[in-house]
Amino acid sequence: MGKIVTFGEIMLRLAPVGFERFAQAREFGVVYGGGEANVAVSLANYNKEAYFVTKLPKNEIGQCAVNELRKYGVNTNLIVRGGDRVGIYYCEKGASQRPSKVIYDRSHSSIAEAKREDFNWKEIFNGAEWFHFTGITPALSDECAAITLEAVKAAKEAGVTISVDLNYRKKLWSTEKAGKVMGEIVKYCDVVIANEEDAEKVFGIKADETDITGGHLSDEGYKNVAKQLVERFDLKYTAITLRESISASDNGWSAMLYDGKDFFKSRRYDMHIVDRVGGGDSFGAGLIYGLTSGYSNQAALEFAVAASCLKHTIEGDFNLVSIEEVETLAKGDASGRVQR
Amino acid sequence: MGKIVTFGEIMLRLAPVGFERFAQAREFGVVYGGGEANVAVSLANYNKEAYFVTKLPKNEIGQCAVNELRKYGVNTNLIVRGGDRVGIYYCEKGASQRPSKVIYDRSHSSIAEAKREDFNWKEIFNGAEWFHFTGITPALSDECAAITLEAVKAAKEAGVTISVDLNYRKKLWSTEKAGKVMGEIVKYCDVVIANEEDAEKVFGIKADETDITGGHLSDEGYKNVAKQLVERFDLKYTAITLRESISASDNGWSAMLYDGKDFFKSRRYDMHIVDRVGGGDSFGAGLIYGLTSGYSNQAALEFAVAASCLKHTIEGDFNLVSIEEVETLAKGDASGRVQR
Amino acid sequence: MGKIVTFGEIMLRLAPVGFERFAQAREFGVVYGGGEANVAVSLANYNKEAYFVTKLPKNEIGQCAVNELRKYGVNTNLIVRGGDRVGIYYCEKGASQRPSKVIYDRSHSSIAEAKREDFNWKEIFNGAEWFHFTGITPALSDECAAITLEAVKAAKEAGVTISVDLNYRKKLWSTEKAGKVMGEIVKYCDVVIANEEDAEKVFGIKADETDITGGHLSDEGYKNVAKQLVERFDLKYTAITLRESISASDNGWSAMLYDGKDFFKSRRYDMHIVDRVGGGDSFGAGLIYGLTSGYSNQAALEFAVAASCLKHTIEGDFNLVSIEEVETLAKGDASGRVQR
Amino acid sequence: MGKIVTFGEIMLRLAPVGFERFAQAREFGVVYGGGEANVAVSLANYNKEAYFVTKLPKNEIGQCAVNELRKYGVNTNLIVRGGDRVGIYYCEKGASQRPSKVIYDRSHSSIAEAKREDFNWKEIFNGAEWFHFTGITPALSDECAAITLEAVKAAKEAGVTISVDLNYRKKLWSTEKAGKVMGEIVKYCDVVIANEEDAEKVFGIKADETDITGGHLSDEGYKNVAKQLVERFDLKYTAITLRESISASDNGWSAMLYDGKDFFKSRRYDMHIVDRVGGGDSFGAGLIYGLTSGYSNQAALEFAVAASCLKHTIEGDFNLVSIEEVETLAKGDASGRVQR
Amino acid sequence: MGKIVTFGEIMLRLAPVGFERFAQAREFGVVYGGGEANVAVSLANYNKEAYFVTKLPKNEIGQCAVNELRKYGVNTNLIVRGGDRVGIYYCEKGASQRPSKVIYDRSHSSIAEAKREDFNWKEIFNGAEWFHFTGITPALSDECAAITLEAVKAAKEAGVTISVDLNYRKKLWSTEKAGKVMGEIVKYCDVVIANEEDAEKVFGIKADETDITGGHLSDEGYKNVAKQLVERFDLKYTAITLRESISASDNGWSAMLYDGKDFFKSRRYDMHIVDRVGGGDSFGAGLIYGLTSGYSNQAALEFAVAASCLKHTIEGDFNLVSIEEVETLAKGDASGRVQR
Amino acid sequence: MGKIVTFGEIMLRLAPVGFERFAQAREFGVVYGGGEANVAVSLANYNKEAYFVTKLPKNEIGQCAVNELRKYGVNTNLIVRGGDRVGIYYCEKGASQRPSKVIYDRSHSSIAEAKREDFNWKEIFNGAEWFHFTGITPALSDECAAITLEAVKAAKEAGVTISVDLNYRKKLWSTEKAGKVMGEIVKYCDVVIANEEDAEKVFGIKADETDITGGHLSDEGYKNVAKQLVERFDLKYTAITLRESISASDNGWSAMLYDGKDFFKSRRYDMHIVDRVGGGDSFGAGLIYGLTSGYSNQAALEFAVAASCLKHTIEGDFNLVSIEEVETLAKGDASGRVQR
Repeated sequence: MGKIVTFGEIMLRLAPVGFERFAQAREFGVVYGGGEANVAVSLANYNKEAYFVTKLPKNEIGQCAVNELRKYGVNTNLIVRGGDRVGIYYCEKGASQRPSKVIYDRSHSSIAEAKREDFNWKEIFNGAEWFHFTGITPALSDECAAITLEAVKAAKEAGVTISVDLNYRKKLWSTEKAGKVMGEIVKYCDVVIANEEDAEKVFGIKADETDITGGHLSDEGYKNVAKQLVERFDLKYTAITLRESISASDNGWSAMLYDGKDFFKSRRYDMHIVDRVGGGDSFGAGLIYGLTSGYSNQAALEFAVAASCLKHTIEGDFNLVSIEEVETLAKGDASGRVQR
Repeated sequence: MGKIVTFGEIMLRLAPVGFERFAQAREFGVVYGGGEANVAVSLANYNKEAYFVTKLPKNEIGQCAVNELRKYGVNTNLIVRGGDRVGIYYCEKGASQRPSKVIYDRSHSSIAEAKREDFNWKEIFNGAEWFHFTGITPALSDECAAITLEAVKAAKEAGVTISVDLNYRKKLWSTEKAGKVMGEIVKYCDVVIANEEDAEKVFGIKADETDITGGHLSDEGYKNVAKQLVERFDLKYTAITLRESISASDNGWSAMLYDGKDFFKSRRYDMHIVDRVGGGDSFGAGLIYGLTSGYSNQAALEFAVAASCLKHTIEGDFNLVSIEEVETLAKGDASGRVQR
Repeated sequence: MGKIVTFGEIMLRLAPVGFERFAQAREFGVVYGGGEANVAVSLANYNKEAYFVTKLPKNEIGQCAVNELRKYGVNTNLIVRGGDRVGIYYCEKGASQRPSKVIYDRSHSSIAEAKREDFNWKEIFNGAEWFHFTGITPALSDECAAITLEAVKAAKEAGVTISVDLNYRKKLWSTEKAGKVMGEIVKYCDVVIANEEDAEKVFGIKADETDITGGHLSDEGYKNVAKQLVERFDLKYTAITLRESISASDNGWSAMLYDGKDFFKSRRYDMHIVDRVGGGDSFGAGLIYGLTSGYSNQAALEFAVAASCLKHTIEGDFNLVSIEEVETLAKGDASGRVQR
Repeated sequence: MGKIVTFGEIMLRLAPVGFERFAQAREFGVVYGGGEANVAVSLANYNKEAYFVTKLPKNEIGQCAVNELRKYGVNTNLIVRGGDRVGIYYCEKGASQRPSKVIYDRSHSSIAEAKREDFNWKEIFNGAEWFHFTGITPALSDECAAITLEAVKAAKEAGVTISVDLNYRKKLWSTEKAGKVMGEIVKYCDVVIANEEDAEKVFGIKADETDITGGHLSDEGYKNVAKQLVERFDLKYTAITLRESISASDNGWSAMLYDGKDFFKSRRYDMHIVDRVGGGDSFGAGLIYGLTSGYSNQAALEFAVAASCLKHTIEGDFNLVSIEEVETLAKGDASGRVQR
Repeated sequence: MGKIVTFGEIMLRLAPVGFERFAQAREFGVVYGGGEANVAVSLANYNKEAYFVTKLPKNEIGQCAVNELRKYGVNTNLIVRGGDRVGIYYCEKGASQRPSKVIYDRSHSSIAEAKREDFNWKEIFNGAEWFHFTGITPALSDECAAITLEAVKAAKEAGVTISVDLNYRKKLWSTEKAGKVMGEIVKYCDVVIANEEDAEKVFGIKADETDITGGHLSDEGYKNVAKQLVERFDLKYTAITLRESISASDNGWSAMLYDGKDFFKSRRYDMHIVDRVGGGDSFGAGLIYGLTSGYSNQAALEFAVAASCLKHTIEGDFNLVSIEEVETLAKGDASGRVQR
Repeated sequence: MGKIVTFGEIMLRLAPVGFERFAQAREFGVVYGGGEANVAVSLANYNKEAYFVTKLPKNEIGQCAVNELRKYGVNTNLIVRGGDRVGIYYCEKGASQRPSKVIYDRSHSSIAEAKREDFNWKEIFNGAEWFHFTGITPALSDECAAITLEAVKAAKEAGVTISVDLNYRKKLWSTEKAGKVMGEIVKYCDVVIANEEDAEKVFGIKADETDITGGHLSDEGYKNVAKQLVERFDLKYTAITLRESISASDNGWSAMLYDGKDFFKSRRYDMHIVDRVGGGDSFGAGLIYGLTSGYSNQAALEFAVAASCLKHTIEGDFNLVSIEEVETLAKGDASGRVQR
């Protein structure tokens, strides 16, 4: 059992109260989150030795981000302090036909302006078992892309398993640039996690035409995509999350896993949404937990999907659930009966 | 492109937090709203030159109402200041089988006690393109009825298009009195907006018997009502909103438009309700926007219905949405996917 | 028309705001409630002369519990003051697949440590018409079991009708102990209220095998259970509430009543849940109201189910609804239309 | 020990949060209060049998006012229900050099429009020991003045001791009218309570010129005023409260009592103000408590001043303190040390 | 009476609730403010035709800043929309010996990255009477310094009176750079406002040694400084505010004005502080109001000091007071008595 | 530099908002604190390797306490999990003449019912430099007294410096029992911290009569007490905090230190109080910090007093200040000027 290291940005999230629009907000709820930080918190909740690596300014706002991570048991000793600012995202919660709205103000953050010499990956991966990051990190800046490449190389060398959540963000880079940068990085990865659109956006990987019905991919289509990913990058696993966006209040949720040989399909959940930010991250964390804890592939997938289903009922970016709570749902009790 | 003038009452709305009942309330959310003010705010959001005309006391509470209108870009220069009080309505939000509850405390407000000499309609309509009011305004007092009649006459004379939302309120007047007063006023109007009950309550206009199925009007029935309205008052348009009250939390929503020749039927939305007050007003505003912006009749109707669908997801009386957001929904994207 | 006396514990309920988890809570909503206190408040709302009997410490927290009861019109003059503490329960609200979570901290409360001499039942039942308690009260301590037994004996002697809600709580006692203690007490009762599991857990009463379909009891099965209860304890009435736990956000709700001769089945409601704590208590109170107010059996049952359906839309333990509101729903208007 | 009856208006108080100005308020704190209601709550806190008499509408807002009074133990059985509205006052809290601001919206309230036949004073005073009202009540309307006159006559006849707090409010009537109406009513009173300005404003009673130093009355001046009051109306007691308005945040506070023979002067307190509304009422209640509980004149005065000093540290109109807390301060412990 | 134009940055202010430290904050109060925007709001409150010129992004956060200004009557038609972000400052309120703490995150804001071609000063000053800015604006970027220089030249040419508040901010530039840039700009100004340290920090202007007592400047010292400023820049007026920092909760406050001939000294206020941000800006606005409204020099100064004294009692950056309220204080009533 | 170990209880603190009384509270602020936990948080803030030892239940409330400690950097790995409940204290904030009020509900907490075998002190003190506890811990139960005695013996043996804050609590034990138990424990201690009353209450140590003036001890008196303490228990240091309780809002604050040879007296602060709970603990932590960081005795004392002065301006039990902030105040800047 070794360290699980995640690397990326943690941002200050500013959100109007309840269903208020930005124009109505007189106060913003204060939450900290980011793809990889969210994964680290989940893993700490599952009693894994989770480390989050980033760069944060020396001021009080940077310290608040550190404190939130510490509160949930993430080890913050590897965080570099310096630079000018904590990245921000403003997040307005949608309802019914009105979508949630995210405004990013993350340029010039400490991590976006970090330098390669800020991180000593050899030391960081000392005693590590797993390394996880998302496609957001190399998109932050050219230097961040270079740092990420250094990180995966060092991880590979140290025998650390590497997972990446493709997480394409069009505000950060073009599909062309993403494809080029990620193409280089994913070569070193063992596990790729993607939502139903990422593979095409980042790598142009599409299912065969016959696998499309009524505009949507069929299960066969997703298998086809998963297969292409595994083959192109020589992966151990590809996992694809499947979100059905019925409205801002209601979503369907399931996922599939491909281990290069067999396909696994999860249960599907109908979710009333409390907060869907971090839904994908909580899936990734659940999968990492399952794969590092001796679960079968099917069980790891069900754990990951149940975990991320629960995330949608929790405010904030972090998935504050216990192994026990996830297991109860994964094993079939979705009745929501009061636990006394 | 000229001024769009609306005239009526703006009230202080006092509402318990969340789903609290009045008996539980320790604080009241403070919002300002009223049929015509809500329309003015919508139109300002759509970049129209919106004016709201009313009378408000010179004290701080009156000023707060002015400030809220200014905040959203409504021109308040035509508001008369004087009188004793801002009208109030207490509003408790319902859920599931429990209906929302409104208690009015609007008697003796500045506008209810306004005098004809308070308003110089000739000046007010100088440069105006459209005039809108609701059936609530003439119901406030006999003098308000007289003022409204003066207003529509002046608008007619100035060549201003006139729309009225029938908006029958049984706490303010009887159906008999409403019919008599409104019968006189609507003669001057070009567009009548009504919900599924107003036409009968105000004017006794009912559909033919054959148009009723299972207690509800059929589409044919509504067409019949629309036709009668257009014919009786020589209107350019009649629009009817159709609310299906499944519960306090879920409603169906659609509308129809009749231009004296053709009938147009909108899409229908299944809505999870955040706040349904002002739903009808946001429809009226959407319709005025469409009709004054070169939209086709069908497009204007779809814009109006999509706009009011979104209103149901927004707290308060005002429909704080942009043209772009309405268009996205009107054009078919109701998936509620996060806008990043 | 006499006093309706309820006897039990009233606790301080501490609940995170909205859908926050305990780990996120920076403030706890403060509410007071408990099975029998909830019934008393409902009955006071229905203009019954409701008394709540308990023991509360002399400090300010005890006084707060008294104040809340007084606020809603419950007579608190029979409450004994003394002992060390107000029992507490922490209550985290669930959503969708995430269940609500209750943590009890009720040991050593004033009522749990009360003594027989604290209560003079003869005086308490002077002028009383009905006595109600739940299976929680005798479970608090052996002394509480003894006090309850004294109470039912005194009530019987005074000719007071006695109702009990079985309300089995596994954290308080084993099924064995519950069966033994309650078996003695229920002998004195006239009305037993139970949910779909209580009869089996407390008394081992199960329906015949043939009455079970797909793991769930059929209507026939519940009738069978009701019949056994009535026969074993020579009851006037048995009522069984039927909760269908679709998720933490949505439940089905109905109930049945058996008067020793005829079975009555209520309407069934699909509920969006605001707060389901106290749902069963509000049913019991509705039933007592109906049975003491000359309602027919069917009408009393419909009143009870409609009342408890409304409870699910109200924050806190208490069911803050009026007779009129319950009647409107019981008579079929579940449309949730705004009451102006 | 008999009933203590108070009669007047209870209003809904709407107050911005903390030190917000009206223009900044997004929610209003909800509190109920009014001169005589405040006195009733204090007396209930001191375990007196306190009744509050008024008229309130049958709607939920009227019920909220009743509930608040019940919560603190005031008997509300004599409250008449009917009429249109609960009077409102908006209250913005001042600080330092910025004064608090009160905007009244109390016209047309149920009590202001009450009729003489609404109240059966003979029954109301059955078993009563004391009757208290303020100069606000007869100022609400001519009918209210007539009702008050009937009340004092009935009280006199029933042998009930009568106290009045002059409480001149310039927004409600002129000094001329106040003088005329109150002159008639005070004839029946036994105790007059006034602040440093009331006597002159209502009755034109001024101290001799020699008693004024630097614009302020000397102690001798207040004695002179008290003497004139006692003599003109044949009173048992006159009490005068002395507020030194240093700023909106800091006040000095003391009082004097004259029993027709001796003068008593209280300690003086330097107060940091939390909420000064109801300060005078809490003095009146403290005095009534002392005079009905066998205190010496000096002790009753000290109790009244200490009670009202504590009121200034409590949010809302009501003085939520116990006898014990008042006694501790009255006996000299103003150190504010933590009570564990 | 012409336009009063102010130019600078308006920021989003994020502040923990009450006296919470950053590390404790779970929500941030949302307020918008900035030196010149604060002045514009004050002037709009005083019924001046106030315009605020800046650049704000086209997103919702930029719109929120516009809305806040509109709410208080500032004309926002001259605001340029574009660029990336709204500048932010985090503001933690101090108390007693603990100072308030401000963390700036204002780099790369739309105004800091604005270009000269964004502003057409000739049009902006069309019909203008007065132009005001602070030393913060030219400190935002070299381009902002250039824009400001263009602005003062254009204002001069248009015959507009120009005032500047020196407002030295060490986080934005060095004293050397400030001196050089401001030296060029102030040449065009008519009125300089400064606090007790600005003149030395920006221009190295110190009082003669003999004017210093116990480390503090004497009145003579400030006169000496004012004289030097007027002489060096050929000013009409110099005003100096004098803050005595007793603690974070208590300050003394006064000011002096020099018109090139006579010195005027204001009253001095002892203030309990609610929020001291914007204190200096409210002084500047008060002075501009006085000087543009025919006040005598002494009266203008007293108005400015009274206005800014009141600002310290108001939450947020904006000074939400009326002319009447300022006049009442300036004329000597600092008693804080309730205004009913 | 070794571990600093503290041992005691951490409680859930439930506090009404602002200056609300318990009877008004609709929510309780949630904070965790306790004498020794407060010290641990301070030391973690000062970058010391702080450990807190206690026993907490395995439920979510216990976890919340752990999370709060982790958030501020305290090492929680030595906390034992088990038992039934987290102790609670209710805390109502006083103002002016109204004292704060604390109601304890701490009996039967996990730590109060802990057993000696729960703690392996030898391991706990492995690598430790300092051990701190207060007189509250042995007062929790006889077993806690025994555990504390084991702890000090183990600490002594391990060469760890031991400090104790006498902290007498009359609700937990009598002065007689305290004297007996503490007399045994303090023998092993090196540093005793006490407030102005503790020494007499716990050990009956009084100053000579001649050292009392006007009811208060003179400086000489405190020296006398300190000397007796040092002599009786062979201490390295005694520190005495001196609180002057002017009112609940204002206190004077200073302290003295005696090292067996010289007396040191600190500066004195006039404090406006935000929250005084934890004031003494923050002094202890400051003193430990100074004494373990090479400060002179006078400097350590000044650091401790400045730190605790700042604590009074911070909400909650924890003193959330940095070394830098304390140093700034200790070195004389109490002006509260904004830190930008």
